[in-house]
Amino acid sequence: MSDLDAVLARIDADLDSSLERLNQLLRIPSVSTEAAHVADCRHAAEWLATDLKAIGFDAAVRDTEGHPMVVGHDHQTRGPRALFYGHYDVQPVDPLNLWDHSPFEPRIETRPDGTKMIRARGSSDDKGQLMTFVEACRAWKAVTGSLPIPVTIFLEGEEEAGGRSMAPFLDANREELTADIALVCDTTMWNAETPAITYSLRGMAAGEITIRAADRDLHSGHYGSAARNPIALLASILADMRDADGKVTLPGFYDGVPETPAEIRAMWDALGFQPSEFLGDIGLSQPAGEADRSVLEQTWARPTAEINGFIGGYTGDGFKTVIPAEASAKISFRLVGDQDPDAIWAAFEEFVRARLPADCEADIKAHHGAQAISLPLDSPMLRKAAAALSREWDREAAIIGAGGSIPVVGEFKRRLGMDTLLVGFALESDNIHSPNEKYELRSFHKGIRSWARILASLAE
Amino acid sequence: MSDLDAVLARIDADLDSSLERLNQLLRIPSVSTEAAHVADCRHAAEWLATDLKAIGFDAAVRDTEGHPMVVGHDHQTRGPRALFYGHYDVQPVDPLNLWDHSPFEPRIETRPDGTKMIRARGSSDDKGQLMTFVEACRAWKAVTGSLPIPVTIFLEGEEEAGGRSMAPFLDANREELTADIALVCDTTMWNAETPAITYSLRGMAAGEITIRAADRDLHSGHYGSAARNPIALLASILADMRDADGKVTLPGFYDGVPETPAEIRAMWDALGFQPSEFLGDIGLSQPAGEADRSVLEQTWARPTAEINGFIGGYTGDGFKTVIPAEASAKISFRLVGDQDPDAIWAAFEEFVRARLPADCEADIKAHHGAQAISLPLDSPMLRKAAAALSREWDREAAIIGAGGSIPVVGEFKRRLGMDTLLVGFALESDNIHSPNEKYELRSFHKGIRSWARILASLAE
Repeated sequence: MSDLDAVLARIDADLDSSLERLNQLLRIPSVSTEAAHVADCRHAAEWLATDLKAIGFDAAVRDTEGHPMVVGHDHQTRGPRALFYGHYDVQPVDPLNLWDHSPFEPRIETRPDGTKMIRARGSSDDKGQLMTFVEACRAWKAVTGSLPIPVTIFLEGEEEAGGRSMAPFLDANREELTADIALVCDTTMWNAETPAITYSLRGMAAGEITIRAADRDLHSGHYGSAARNPIALLASILADMRDADGKVTLPGFYDGVPETPAEIRAMWDALGFQPSEFLGDIGLSQPAGEADRSVLEQTWARPTAEINGFIGGYTGDGFKTVIPAEASAKISFRLVGDQDPDAIWAAFEEFVRARLPADCEADIKAHHGAQAISLPLDSPMLRKAAAALSREWDREAAIIGAGGSIPVVGEFKRRLGMDTLLVGFALESDNIHSPNEKYELRSFHKGIRSWARILASLAE
Repeated sequence: MSDLDAVLARIDADLDSSLERLNQLLRIPSVSTEAAHVADCRHAAEWLATDLKAIGFDAAVRDTEGHPMVVGHDHQTRGPRALFYGHYDVQPVDPLNLWDHSPFEPRIETRPDGTKMIRARGSSDDKGQLMTFVEACRAWKAVTGSLPIPVTIFLEGEEEAGGRSMAPFLDANREELTADIALVCDTTMWNAETPAITYSLRGMAAGEITIRAADRDLHSGHYGSAARNPIALLASILADMRDADGKVTLPGFYDGVPETPAEIRAMWDALGFQPSEFLGDIGLSQPAGEADRSVLEQTWARPTAEINGFIGGYTGDGFKTVIPAEASAKISFRLVGDQDPDAIWAAFEEFVRARLPADCEADIKAHHGAQAISLPLDSPMLRKAAAALSREWDREAAIIGAGGSIPVVGEFKRRLGMDTLLVGFALESDNIHSPNEKYELRSFHKGIRSWARILASLAE
């Protein structure tokens, strides 16, 4: 029996204990955005540090201005070093009345077909997911006394709360935290049967704009049509940002946008993605992005401009014939490839100013930006991890993109120069951030086995 | 000495008493929108009915579902009958801390140049204005025992509160209230030296639109660009409503829009209107309406489409990368000439539906509509009133338009078939609806004299 086979057997035999440990962690209501749960967040961090020490990690709770971090090092020295990242904080549970049971009293539920799921806040996002890695390490240490490669486990408690402590913590502990690769378990599988590695995340340039016209609210009878209406002006400028084919019209917007490699495109074609299902799930049927791109490309591989909020004038019940003094919008651009968030925001500013009448003002404020992330497709670590996943799930691992951003991945790249391998076992149906969050018991069990295999394959 | 001269002399001699009566009325806090002032509104109505009886009118307080009306008839029978309309209710006084004194304790203030003004809520809108007519009638009755023409005085108490009682009251008392002409004193002079008759009021078609796309709020990372953004869609449709030259693009929108008669255009040219001042007063410098029309035409004689409110997505502090399920706007069209409010609203609906992707819905609700009003320029009553005003103010009366609507004038036309002569002595600087409302003592005094002259000239 190989070491790996012995480790996998141990994982199978130890599953009930693994679950009991996860349940202990799930019972701690570590809601990071709520002041009432500050002590619970620390409690979760302490529980994790204690557990890592029990496995043999040199682990400690590390204070920040906000919720503490947990950092644990293993002293193995052969092979590439991996930094595993997860977060122990969870989303608030409101509205509580929509939960079928208490969110911090985890339950195993069995479906008629015998499949089981773990119900609790955090069961998927991210306590269940992070514990797949911890349990894989435990099994390796228990069976062989060491890990296949050097590992640092790094857990934070502010992921669901805007995470102000991360950047200074990375800067202050750069040497300690920089590894050859970061591993993150906070994403989904392609579907319940198919494991996935997320190799690209869109970047972001976001901010807000306020357009001011008259120096006060006006009566639309007295001034209507002669006085500039800032709502109409803002609507017209923002409408101009996309053409009839769904292309973004900002000059230079597509600079640095790569074509999706043929290899990736072929993989995606093979995924059996159904645009009609993807859109049908949210009550839509017509793709709204660039007309010459597939829906997968639109969301994974193409940049976009979105209006995330718009307000101006009278928006209460009934009617008020006002021409307001100002109107505001929140705008975000999702970026890919080498698009530069600062350059995109500057192009947006210029685009607005070019359309601004001389007697109006635009207050344009960048809010946050992040470059898109992608792991080189020819990365040996990506290939090794994909092979390990494919063996565990008996199905070729999908190499997928993601439309959203995971800020910490950008921070790892920018501050530590470190690429990230995103492997997760969540499903779209896990209700993360919603009532009745769950994690498939199969995700948990095979997730642990997957990490055990990935650790082995990264050592090869 | 002619009757008129005697009446004018009486008005001059009686000015202090006239002021004292106005002050009595101003001391009654008849704020129609506030439940706490229901009894005060009735008190104001009773005070007025009593005063009209004292002059010799057959007057009574008339109950409605809301605040009462006051109707008083004079029994003179020679000549055309006039229905004088005014409102005894006033706007709320908030924010009270911006008033220099108590809003219901009227004060006479004298400027360094000796001119005087009456400060109180309602001093201009509309108690001061309506009392100019009442005092003119009082003087005629005192000097000659009768009025030059038959007069009905009709005062309401819901003008500042949306006025639900007006329509059923007009319908129920059609015969009693229908006259040859309605006289309304609720408008402004052209400037402090130049009296004005407002001969046209723009109409209105107003309502709201909600566009629904996905069946829930979406994360813009996961769905951005592929899922329709209802904010962007609504912004784009509304932006389409006006072209680069400021023209409204709804098909058929300009049907029934008359060209401004050359005679009126010449008069307006002679008014010395300064677009740069008009716009400069509100912090603007560039006219925003139809490029080939003057600012006066834009606001008085041309129709327009305005967005009075817009809301969608996240509009709080910070940022939320949401694609909302819906976005809404409030829209109003100001109408002129024979534009039909129902047809305009139908054209708007069709315009929206033609631009709506198959998987989105638009909920479009008409809120209220009113046809534009204008008094025929060759109306003998208009000519007579203008001549009387010109004699009193020693300055040719301006025949002006107004960009806004006065709903009761539309109701008089629609329900009673009655045209309205709008003569007012307010100034733009009167702070109506604002703290420190005032009415020029000169407006009050010469307003009374003006009505005395108009009554005489309408009898000719």
